[in-house]
Amino acid sequence: MGQIERVGVSLEKELLAAFDSLIAQQGYPSRSEAIRDLIRQQISAERLSHPQAQAVAAVFLVYSHHATNLMEMLTDLQHSHHLQTISSMHIHLDEHNCLEVIVLRGQVGKIHKTAESLISLKGVKLGRINLLTTETP
Amino acid sequence: MGQIERVGVSLEKELLAAFDSLIAQQGYPSRSEAIRDLIRQQISAERLSHPQAQAVAAVFLVYSHHATNLMEMLTDLQHSHHLQTISSMHIHLDEHNCLEVIVLRGQVGKIHKTAESLISLKGVKLGRINLLTTETP
Amino acid sequence: MGQIERVGVSLEKELLAAFDSLIAQQGYPSRSEAIRDLIRQQISAERLSHPQAQAVAAVFLVYSHHATNLMEMLTDLQHSHHLQTISSMHIHLDEHNCLEVIVLRGQVGKIHKTAESLISLKGVKLGRINLLTTETP
Amino acid sequence: MGQIERVGVSLEKELLAAFDSLIAQQGYPSRSEAIRDLIRQQISAERLSHPQAQAVAAVFLVYSHHATNLMEMLTDLQHSHHLQTISSMHIHLDEHNCLEVIVLRGQVGKIHKTAESLISLKGVKLGRINLLTTETP
Repeated sequence: MGQIERVGVSLEKELLAAFDSLIAQQGYPSRSEAIRDLIRQQISAERLSHPQAQAVAAVFLVYSHHATNLMEMLTDLQHSHHLQTISSMHIHLDEHNCLEVIVLRGQVGKIHKTAESLISLKGVKLGRINLLTTETP
Repeated sequence: MGQIERVGVSLEKELLAAFDSLIAQQGYPSRSEAIRDLIRQQISAERLSHPQAQAVAAVFLVYSHHATNLMEMLTDLQHSHHLQTISSMHIHLDEHNCLEVIVLRGQVGKIHKTAESLISLKGVKLGRINLLTTETP
Repeated sequence: MGQIERVGVSLEKELLAAFDSLIAQQGYPSRSEAIRDLIRQQISAERLSHPQAQAVAAVFLVYSHHATNLMEMLTDLQHSHHLQTISSMHIHLDEHNCLEVIVLRGQVGKIHKTAESLISLKGVKLGRINLLTTETP
Repeated sequence: MGQIERVGVSLEKELLAAFDSLIAQQGYPSRSEAIRDLIRQQISAERLSHPQAQAVAAVFLVYSHHATNLMEMLTDLQHSHHLQTISSMHIHLDEHNCLEVIVLRGQVGKIHKTAESLISLKGVKLGRINLLTTETP
């Protein structure tokens, strides 16, 4: 976790009371932990707004079994020079639909481009991209 | 601003350095001000997730001049018992399009319902709802 | 509204039924109007993802009366060469808080930069930016 | 895929041209496929706004190896009566950080509650929840 520093924050009594109540409800053990999470989210969001930034992404795809092109494209993706597929997971949701979770590493811009080309395939019903900064301070 | 309290937050040196760099870029005068903003956003988001919460909303509509029903509906809205129209602003964007910004006060659920019925009108091209908690600690 | 074209869309019976039910609830007069809105939102979101794109923005700020710097910065903004302030609206929310809605025109990247510097001011409690493409087809 | 229906949509020539250009760039094979995706996203978003709705969620956690409580909580989760853990995936991001992807099934409200209690643990640095409707028409 590296070296720890301690900083002081001034805030209005009412704001602090509202925050304490919210984080108790969410299960935070301390204000520091909750504030660290807010700070990390903010830093992460800013970094990921640059298309050149390096990121890890989890791409979620819901598709019907009939989406045969998807399997070919996912195989091609494993051999891509632009993105590195770290891992993937396949789940049978019901008799018609599967969920594929693919974890990729690469540039934000290229991840978006690749995810779009997967989501636009016939038979792919829903898709989401979750981006994480590779270096999470 | 009410009574001020001071709390201590422990965080990793690298995380603090990344945060200091981000908030300098955004123009924050101090860490306290930046952390207060993060806390307020979090509290506000949680409160607005409840349909029964009281809120102020700014509804933002882009529409063509031919959307005659919109004007009638906006007039009806002024006389609504469920929502209170606080103010509105009308802007000519170009020869085809206008922007109407309407500031309302009422329950989150009712604001969404009303905004949807405005956005769904023929001639209304784009709509957005910005919700604010009425009590911002 | 320009020349109208008619296109055919094939979709599963269950998907169509679920869509018809959703748009009836939202108040849409026809499927065409609802689909046009979905298409416009998608086009608008894509255009606004480029920092160089021209946009109209409504910036919403909640602030306390004590945020005196805000007034100076808003005045400076009127004389900015980068952004054109089209209109603004000032609302007294309660005894402590005001809402300012500022409608600006300019580049997406510059709008974000300006909005960040307003939101980061001491006394500004919450801020939101709503971007619209200036050319809404 | 079930029985297919064909519906007609009227839209302005300029809007159609902008849409054709966007979907070509995203890789869609046809307008129907792109419009079906827009409709499914809209239906899915509406359904997931109800805390009682049934959903499948992929929860995405970045944490340091020192987050020992997380492992215990993930084990407890497998035995939960409220949520069914379908699958999980563990990835070593770098020497300090791991990524855990957990796919759950249950009520939207309970999924949020559980995810919040995981994200709030000491050592969990970032968390995201992706919700999917279990019945995707």
